[in-house]
Amino acid sequence: MEQLQQGSDVFFLLMGAILVFAMHGGFAFLEVGTVRHFSQVNALVKIMVDFAISTVAYFFIGFWISYGITFLVSASALTGGAEGFGPQGLTLVKFFFLCTFAAAIPAIVSGGIAERARFVPQCAATALLVGFAYPLIEGTVWNNNFGLQDTLFESMLGANFHDFAGSIVVHAFGGWAALGAILRLGPRRGRYDHPGVSGTPPSSIPWLAMGSWMLCIGWFGFNVMSAQSVAAISGLVAMNSLMAMAGGILAALIVGRNDPGFVHNGALAGLVAVCAGSDVMHPVGSLVTGAIAGFIFVQFFQLATQRWKIDDVLGVWPLHGLCGLWGGLACGIFGTEALGGIGGVTFASQFVGSLLGSAYGLVAGLIVYTLVDLIFGFRMSDEEQRRGADLTIHNISANPELDVRTGRI
Amino acid sequence: MEQLQQGSDVFFLLMGAILVFAMHGGFAFLEVGTVRHFSQVNALVKIMVDFAISTVAYFFIGFWISYGITFLVSASALTGGAEGFGPQGLTLVKFFFLCTFAAAIPAIVSGGIAERARFVPQCAATALLVGFAYPLIEGTVWNNNFGLQDTLFESMLGANFHDFAGSIVVHAFGGWAALGAILRLGPRRGRYDHPGVSGTPPSSIPWLAMGSWMLCIGWFGFNVMSAQSVAAISGLVAMNSLMAMAGGILAALIVGRNDPGFVHNGALAGLVAVCAGSDVMHPVGSLVTGAIAGFIFVQFFQLATQRWKIDDVLGVWPLHGLCGLWGGLACGIFGTEALGGIGGVTFASQFVGSLLGSAYGLVAGLIVYTLVDLIFGFRMSDEEQRRGADLTIHNISANPELDVRTGRI
Amino acid sequence: MEQLQQGSDVFFLLMGAILVFAMHGGFAFLEVGTVRHFSQVNALVKIMVDFAISTVAYFFIGFWISYGITFLVSASALTGGAEGFGPQGLTLVKFFFLCTFAAAIPAIVSGGIAERARFVPQCAATALLVGFAYPLIEGTVWNNNFGLQDTLFESMLGANFHDFAGSIVVHAFGGWAALGAILRLGPRRGRYDHPGVSGTPPSSIPWLAMGSWMLCIGWFGFNVMSAQSVAAISGLVAMNSLMAMAGGILAALIVGRNDPGFVHNGALAGLVAVCAGSDVMHPVGSLVTGAIAGFIFVQFFQLATQRWKIDDVLGVWPLHGLCGLWGGLACGIFGTEALGGIGGVTFASQFVGSLLGSAYGLVAGLIVYTLVDLIFGFRMSDEEQRRGADLTIHNISANPELDVRTGRI
Repeated sequence: MEQLQQGSDVFFLLMGAILVFAMHGGFAFLEVGTVRHFSQVNALVKIMVDFAISTVAYFFIGFWISYGITFLVSASALTGGAEGFGPQGLTLVKFFFLCTFAAAIPAIVSGGIAERARFVPQCAATALLVGFAYPLIEGTVWNNNFGLQDTLFESMLGANFHDFAGSIVVHAFGGWAALGAILRLGPRRGRYDHPGVSGTPPSSIPWLAMGSWMLCIGWFGFNVMSAQSVAAISGLVAMNSLMAMAGGILAALIVGRNDPGFVHNGALAGLVAVCAGSDVMHPVGSLVTGAIAGFIFVQFFQLATQRWKIDDVLGVWPLHGLCGLWGGLACGIFGTEALGGIGGVTFASQFVGSLLGSAYGLVAGLIVYTLVDLIFGFRMSDEEQRRGADLTIHNISANPELDVRTGRI
Repeated sequence: MEQLQQGSDVFFLLMGAILVFAMHGGFAFLEVGTVRHFSQVNALVKIMVDFAISTVAYFFIGFWISYGITFLVSASALTGGAEGFGPQGLTLVKFFFLCTFAAAIPAIVSGGIAERARFVPQCAATALLVGFAYPLIEGTVWNNNFGLQDTLFESMLGANFHDFAGSIVVHAFGGWAALGAILRLGPRRGRYDHPGVSGTPPSSIPWLAMGSWMLCIGWFGFNVMSAQSVAAISGLVAMNSLMAMAGGILAALIVGRNDPGFVHNGALAGLVAVCAGSDVMHPVGSLVTGAIAGFIFVQFFQLATQRWKIDDVLGVWPLHGLCGLWGGLACGIFGTEALGGIGGVTFASQFVGSLLGSAYGLVAGLIVYTLVDLIFGFRMSDEEQRRGADLTIHNISANPELDVRTGRI
Repeated sequence: MEQLQQGSDVFFLLMGAILVFAMHGGFAFLEVGTVRHFSQVNALVKIMVDFAISTVAYFFIGFWISYGITFLVSASALTGGAEGFGPQGLTLVKFFFLCTFAAAIPAIVSGGIAERARFVPQCAATALLVGFAYPLIEGTVWNNNFGLQDTLFESMLGANFHDFAGSIVVHAFGGWAALGAILRLGPRRGRYDHPGVSGTPPSSIPWLAMGSWMLCIGWFGFNVMSAQSVAAISGLVAMNSLMAMAGGILAALIVGRNDPGFVHNGALAGLVAVCAGSDVMHPVGSLVTGAIAGFIFVQFFQLATQRWKIDDVLGVWPLHGLCGLWGGLACGIFGTEALGGIGGVTFASQFVGSLLGSAYGLVAGLIVYTLVDLIFGFRMSDEEQRRGADLTIHNISANPELDVRTGRI
């Protein structure tokens, strides 16, 4: 019986980890479809290599910072013999699950800095973000490190800062860190040379859509498996995710006037925003939360990339940064009993926690990417950008056969 | 212990819902690959928006018609405190699972009416189908609404009408509703102007195949998780699905002479047909059922689109309508103990139920799409069709960068 | 309680089977992206049809050879009433799971013989491999058929030959069988006519990457669900798979100089190598094992296809054959307690078993493909190769609309 329970928890977290791992494929293809043809290969390699670097950094350093656990004991001990390690490798599959969250940080940033970032500094930044910067916020919110949850939130603001699946810890942190990286890096060569041009046309809507689908599918693991045990699973989380996604799609459709990029990112906007409160909000509250997120994404993507000239290629700052921030706040609104939620949250805690998390992301992003810029030089030269990241960094284009045949490379 | 059982059921239904949700991505990419290039974006947006509309319509109306449950109580009540709601949000994840079934109806229709349907009327039809028409058949068959299962089937025809995972309730209903829509809408501009031309060439076999793979993968959730609890799970359903898929592939390969479109749809034909009886048939019966379905699809796709001039772009009427109908009947043949099945079914019940379900689908489709046609005007003008649904409705093509560079748009 | 346990095992194996089934989509798209445009359709049809043929061959013959079980009893008996069949169809879902492994053999070979193999002989070889050749090694290693595990390994070499998830049974066997097929078939027309040309450029890096992602995602089911019951699940297997994948990616990135093909295959190389010992190695050992596998793949792919003129299109011999062989050995190194592993393995057993398995694969491949060559003629004529497999075998190209419009076909 006990073994069945333990085994079921391992199985449960495993499926969660696999689903969130699949989201990384989604990050890759969303970027492939959104960037121009000559940066597609770079998008693919970045996401896969970032995932590998994140795994190593989080294994050796990050997980220890967040949860105080290291893995340098024998395999027998790891699978349950030693103190601090759950039976049947439960702690290991928990690591796998949380590692896929950690690796989302560079995957989020990747879409913002696309087409003009050099490869090695970007890899170094990944290691710094996942090894150090992210575990600090992760441990603070989810493991009560530094006692901030008790001293600041619980005592002074009336409740723990609630972020069930990471609207702030993962998305706002990642999105604001991306803003820092984008500000440091500057826009792509020629991006704002011609006033009135609204943007660079994406290379492929089908690939963009495939990325969105993979993200949406995996997101149900991201949210529901954040319960971390079968005993704690709640169907409410699944339903709220569904409703927020639907709200995001419909709002983006209307505000974005049938644009496929907005519709497919609108689904993600809703899902970003529902993470924090998916275990305490009412489904109708989630629908509204998602719809507002879809609206935020479309409006601020246009403002940021056109009015404010922030060259955020995939719109990761509005998507993850702003919709994540909104999600942290929404949890303090629709999570209250007054609005049909389960309660146990306060708007004050959510307000302070969300702003702190976002600000920390921006600062972390500025520091990390400034550092790698100073050490390695972060930006591809104009000539390299003209050739494109694929040929410059990877010596191959996305469709080599065609390009060889037509003499393009 | 009880909590583990409840949690396991929530987990089980969640995975089913995620898998069937992934099938909607499959619907999207199957259509992307089968339509022409200038309708790819529309295919993608349609499926994602239909899913969102379906979610909202089924949440507020459809689920109440089928199962008498509404969600307008507090979140605490929804997760198990109130009457009619299972513990740990079990009822909510059941909603999610069944919502992905309901949303399959417009996704099925979508492939039949591709390339020439206007967007708003199609969205309105989705709401009507998922909010009203589908819940009526769903509740009648799966929730014994109106007592038809007792009064007609059990008493008069010897057994309940058996449709384990929806050959009739989902696929035949959807496929015959699609036929109604197609008949109302008429063929694409110029489709039958040149006698002897067998059809419009699909844009991309890889995308078509990707759609088929996503559908096949998710289908195992569609079928096995229809048990709706871990205690009721049966490996027989998985094996029968596997065998029917194999039968469909091989028959379509042979009858369709190695054609990739037929092979990849043949897998789906087998899976459509096995839904109804997957819990009662023998694996060899399922292999035969799937093979016959593969044959039916190839033959009737050619008959319908070439001989009878029904412009069913993806062949959804033969695939879902006819193979679904065949699946309802096959359950009454191979489900009997005489042919190695588990029994508890009668051919009379299956025959009457399958015909009634299909006829209801056709009538529902005709009514709904006639209604939206009268209100909004269902059909794109010839000029709009010439420009293509992508530019007309979405102001963008599937590969904007290339089209801008080559001056195509 | 007992029913929950049984149902959970069925659920667990089902998810494993679905994940490995998804890997077959991965095989298809990896080949689509790596071959030239005029062989893409053939890649897709081959994998799907091979899967169907494998299912039928394994159902009627292969599973009986491996495990002595046939399915020609009534459906009631199959679901648990009869001797040898687990409750709730457990044995059937076990068949589904193991069938997806068996079907990996022709899927592995497929990538090696791409672009010049005729279709019917290749299908016949699939039936022979999955119906006869593979079940012999599968049953010997995993079901102690012929008593070889006792008489040779346990008694003489100190421990059973350990191959948890099939580095040898599946990957080395398949990879070496592919080498046999490639040697029999010969290189593609013109492949080595121009000295100094390093290879044929792949058609599409995004499709290649999609294949890799689907394989990586499904691989966690391939490895973890090899435990075959919830009670036996181990989070160590998941973590070791993760670490080996990361090691493979990073090594291939460095050795392969940022090449996207190498990076995406490097992930697979690590996963191939970790299969055997994923339940006994330490995560750090798995990282090293994966990194060495990534190195092996890049080096031997170049040696084999350029220096040794073995026209292995996808590099399946280095990937599955050599990295699989290395995985069998690595289990005997990093699985020992001395290197942090759980123990219970000996290098002698792993050495002998790995070599025997690989040699058996090569011999089986040579025999099977020689046989079908003699009976049917295995190789497409030069003229057929010039037209390409798609038009020759399937009468259609990968992008029919574009090819019709531009007059290419």
